[in-house]
Amino acid sequence: MNTSMRDCLTDVKPWLMAGGQSIRSRLLVGIEQYADPELVRAVLEAADADLFIITYDLQNTRSSLLLSDIDQAFDIDKYVLAGTTSFAVSADMAVKTARQLRDRFGINLIKLDVRDAANMPDTAATVDAAIELARDGFVLLPFIPPDRQTARRLEDLGCAAIRLMASPVGSYLGISDPDAMLRCIEQLTVPVIIEGGIGSPAHVAHAMELGATAVLVNTLIARAADPAGMATALRYAVLAGDLGVRSR
Amino acid sequence: MNTSMRDCLTDVKPWLMAGGQSIRSRLLVGIEQYADPELVRAVLEAADADLFIITYDLQNTRSSLLLSDIDQAFDIDKYVLAGTTSFAVSADMAVKTARQLRDRFGINLIKLDVRDAANMPDTAATVDAAIELARDGFVLLPFIPPDRQTARRLEDLGCAAIRLMASPVGSYLGISDPDAMLRCIEQLTVPVIIEGGIGSPAHVAHAMELGATAVLVNTLIARAADPAGMATALRYAVLAGDLGVRSR
Repeated sequence: MNTSMRDCLTDVKPWLMAGGQSIRSRLLVGIEQYADPELVRAVLEAADADLFIITYDLQNTRSSLLLSDIDQAFDIDKYVLAGTTSFAVSADMAVKTARQLRDRFGINLIKLDVRDAANMPDTAATVDAAIELARDGFVLLPFIPPDRQTARRLEDLGCAAIRLMASPVGSYLGISDPDAMLRCIEQLTVPVIIEGGIGSPAHVAHAMELGATAVLVNTLIARAADPAGMATALRYAVLAGDLGVRSR
Repeated sequence: MNTSMRDCLTDVKPWLMAGGQSIRSRLLVGIEQYADPELVRAVLEAADADLFIITYDLQNTRSSLLLSDIDQAFDIDKYVLAGTTSFAVSADMAVKTARQLRDRFGINLIKLDVRDAANMPDTAATVDAAIELARDGFVLLPFIPPDRQTARRLEDLGCAAIRLMASPVGSYLGISDPDAMLRCIEQLTVPVIIEGGIGSPAHVAHAMELGATAVLVNTLIARAADPAGMATALRYAVLAGDLGVRSR
């Protein structure tokens, strides 16, 4: 390995500060779909993740690893804890989930999702929840389609970063409207995380080339034959896209 | 950097043997567009290249670094030498160029190109040149559009690998017809190199995901603000696509 490659792997500055903690990794990995804590550990290490995203299912209807399952398997102290509201189907559920995550685990950084019946982002409900949670002092990462008005609104509400949907969750379609994504990214000053429908390393590199600060991947890794191998591949793809932008 | 990432960077087996020498790197870099030997050295090191592609311009009408310019700048002994006929506009010119490269430099491995007036591959002339050069015992890497019949024909002629055009040279359009590319790759048993119109790391990862064994990039690196940085980015992209395929 030559010197510039090693430098590129190690000299990565934080792109987000949240409650005195810094997020440096540009590959974010969801862990809602895992049943095995040991696999979660392997995937997070392969991704070089520094964010550990936990959830709290108000309804307890779906299986998901919770913090209590994980902390026996490996040392989570080296991760920044974030909470997700990915099971929420209303603004009210999202707000309640975030407050539970703060009360139980001291979590202040929220991956804010409100999904509609088709598992797509419920934009209006997401904005409503963001208004409420911003007032409570949460650091918010809301998930919406690449819509300029909504993105700007959420930025104005003080959200720390905006998560823009590439294509429907689990679709593997990649960035279905690169022009809309680009327009959205260009008008924002906060970091953008591209997420949803990422189906290959090429999609991850594409996201970075469009100006994403980070990419969040869930299903592609969780359902891979070798999840840790896929996480490593996506980490290369993040580096490839990022360095390509800086070199072009 | 975790262990699996380091393993992936170093444990790469050769994908082509030519005259007792092995080609291991899956990122091939053309150097026809460079005027500075020192920049060539930096780019080839960043790409982790093991193939050094030189040309011989029969007409001497275009500037190009020749072996004589290069061997003062750095040690080319660690590279496998290949010759290119990229200036050829007829089968006859390609054959003559290849023979000159063998006579002058002992080169037996030929990146076979015959271009038409629009700088697109002249398929019929390429096949004619391949027939002639295969008879002479050259190891051939011909360049054609992703056409199944022609690719099969060239494989039957004994070509060592087939270079399939992603999109017109210098266009930055990436793989304009992924389905045609996939059909072509699936029916071949020899390695496929995807080349032409590669415009970003995402395109390189995409090529690997479609089943390419290697990717050849020229203009994107040569015209980058930081050619060595771009070469490093593309190397990551190759690794990302390749590992993604093996992990999915």
